[in-house]
Amino acid sequence: MTVRTSASVSTLDGDVSAFARTSADLLQRVRASEPLVQCITNAVVTGFTANVLLATGASPAMCDIPDEAGVLAGVAGGVLVNLGTPTAEQRQAALEAVEAATRTETPWVLDPVAVGVLPVRTELAARLRDAAPTIIRGNASEILALAGAGSGGKGVDSTDSAEDAADVARELATRTGAVVAVSGPIDLITDGARTVRVANGHVWLTAVTGGGCALGALMAAFASTTDDALAAAVAATLAHTVAAEDAAAVSTGPGSFAVALLDALHTLTPEQLEQRARLS
Amino acid sequence: MTVRTSASVSTLDGDVSAFARTSADLLQRVRASEPLVQCITNAVVTGFTANVLLATGASPAMCDIPDEAGVLAGVAGGVLVNLGTPTAEQRQAALEAVEAATRTETPWVLDPVAVGVLPVRTELAARLRDAAPTIIRGNASEILALAGAGSGGKGVDSTDSAEDAADVARELATRTGAVVAVSGPIDLITDGARTVRVANGHVWLTAVTGGGCALGALMAAFASTTDDALAAAVAATLAHTVAAEDAAAVSTGPGSFAVALLDALHTLTPEQLEQRARLS
Amino acid sequence: MTVRTSASVSTLDGDVSAFARTSADLLQRVRASEPLVQCITNAVVTGFTANVLLATGASPAMCDIPDEAGVLAGVAGGVLVNLGTPTAEQRQAALEAVEAATRTETPWVLDPVAVGVLPVRTELAARLRDAAPTIIRGNASEILALAGAGSGGKGVDSTDSAEDAADVARELATRTGAVVAVSGPIDLITDGARTVRVANGHVWLTAVTGGGCALGALMAAFASTTDDALAAAVAATLAHTVAAEDAAAVSTGPGSFAVALLDALHTLTPEQLEQRARLS
Repeated sequence: MTVRTSASVSTLDGDVSAFARTSADLLQRVRASEPLVQCITNAVVTGFTANVLLATGASPAMCDIPDEAGVLAGVAGGVLVNLGTPTAEQRQAALEAVEAATRTETPWVLDPVAVGVLPVRTELAARLRDAAPTIIRGNASEILALAGAGSGGKGVDSTDSAEDAADVARELATRTGAVVAVSGPIDLITDGARTVRVANGHVWLTAVTGGGCALGALMAAFASTTDDALAAAVAATLAHTVAAEDAAAVSTGPGSFAVALLDALHTLTPEQLEQRARLS
Repeated sequence: MTVRTSASVSTLDGDVSAFARTSADLLQRVRASEPLVQCITNAVVTGFTANVLLATGASPAMCDIPDEAGVLAGVAGGVLVNLGTPTAEQRQAALEAVEAATRTETPWVLDPVAVGVLPVRTELAARLRDAAPTIIRGNASEILALAGAGSGGKGVDSTDSAEDAADVARELATRTGAVVAVSGPIDLITDGARTVRVANGHVWLTAVTGGGCALGALMAAFASTTDDALAAAVAATLAHTVAAEDAAAVSTGPGSFAVALLDALHTLTPEQLEQRARLS
Repeated sequence: MTVRTSASVSTLDGDVSAFARTSADLLQRVRASEPLVQCITNAVVTGFTANVLLATGASPAMCDIPDEAGVLAGVAGGVLVNLGTPTAEQRQAALEAVEAATRTETPWVLDPVAVGVLPVRTELAARLRDAAPTIIRGNASEILALAGAGSGGKGVDSTDSAEDAADVARELATRTGAVVAVSGPIDLITDGARTVRVANGHVWLTAVTGGGCALGALMAAFASTTDDALAAAVAATLAHTVAAEDAAAVSTGPGSFAVALLDALHTLTPEQLEQRARLS
């Protein structure tokens, strides 16, 4: 275990090993409670996202039409709003779901896919950003663009590193009250005051569509089990990235990796999560 | 082989081994005729459903827009209407497809996903229920809700067992003229007079998104080969659940299981289907 | 290497081994440039298509809503318009994307899925056919229908062989200025003057949904690297079909085949592509 201190506003509030222990505990809670996770997400990754949730122990529901999305969000344990392919119905459904989640104090995750590049989602993302999401998750380019500090990446791929976005992420967290999670080779997760970095993972997560999108759904699942959204985001990231390491070890390419990731999430134990966490 | 008699209206009309033999025969017919199965289904499972149909020997077509859905339903061998993510266009397409299927006497399957919980689909499902579906397929909570006897489950997951819904399923079958198939650890399939239970399967079918949805598509494929909708629903369920047993035997988790299920459906023989059927 | 000459307008302009060498070169270029490929494609195959692009080395973006599709097409390396499930929003998005691609001289691929059978897409496909696509890709029934010479196949499956469509494909290429690629056991690719046949592949490509659709996306990726659209279409077809042979060699059915295809595309080398090409 190494503790990395940052020169800026963020220093770890105590010991990162506490995050590893808490992550193990939260994984147990997800398995025990099987939280209903209402996902409004893009057409590309919806099946994979549902399978990631099921493999981890959560119960996915992908209800993304008006007059239903809010109903389900109101009874769900957590909600994901992912803007990857935001049809008109999905945009309305997202607003309904966020309204219901806010009313019922249900944690919700905003994943502003390709924001900054594309106008329709950029406008919606700005509105959702200001609607008090529990967690905001994206790559560095998306976080920079959502914060108004960048112009977005190349479509869905980041052209910036997570560390490039560190200061902006903390500022965005402070401004919105959300935990901000920036994915990259080293994931950076901050609530403005505390910043945790997760060094687990594998490059094949970027060679499979929906790796990041599924992580957003896992964050909603873990957030259903605790009031500490930073701990939830760290735990979800650890589960995803430690499982990715296990999956890569038995795979011969990105196709078999995606399949093995589901198996690894299913068999991952809380003890493994704690022991193998590489946090700083 | 055991024959289970029920205290209520249902007793097996003869011998369940006849259903096993017929199932083998119907699988051969699906392979020989490669029926075109028109699926209006949810965005989460559309790819997996198409692959299940292809692996089994049918020819999937997922046409779900107005002004086309009815055209395709009119030339298809069977039609699936699954209400998992019913966009406005899909709702219109579903009505068109059912109208065409009715006109051309094409068998069609209604899968009322998450009905009872969510208002838009609940209203549509009630209308479709009364439009003479050939087969209605759902989990116990969905069947209870569709029959007006329950309030729905937890999103897409059932909170009731198939046996809890047995009486309601028979009543629903008698009222609508449809075969009603209730999925669960033991599947229950009834036409009101006869009730067949299928004990094959594996718990990982519930750890993969679209397991039940794909079964609805298979029922449409098998129904294209016979006028006996009860036999078709039993045969589809057997193909799905026997293949699931083969898949589980070579899998290390739900990811590899879903892949192996497609391989198993592809290699499943009519003889295996008959010999391994656990019907009652 | 065999050179097949045709009795009609097409004779190979030189030596097919040049196409094999060029294909190897273009695969290297795709890997080096990681082209952004904007895909407007059907809901059934969108995840698989994205994974095929990622595995091969391209960067997928599946933006299919109005007011965004054109923006992304304008900055993409290549664009795919696949008409498999053309919702109203997708139809508008397709027109915007084609307008932007035309304006920015970005290569774009038209995949007229199930055209001829279904009215909405048939009308749109005719309009897009006349909007100067770079490449048109389909099965024989679709190419015949798009050219006005046939009535379409059975849903998405061809009822004609690629060779049946050879003359019509050349005529369509000459008329539209597009390279026309007809898939089948032997793929036929023509620019009207030159015709190349690719004998690589495996029958399981037809047992997996989205095999052909993903090939259209690969053609857009390869077309981003060269002005020779015929060479791009041949190279994409070779990459897809040679990888399919590798995948089939390690698979036990269509499920494991689809997974292995992604692995094979990821590990395929330019040298393998050149050496194993079976062109005529």
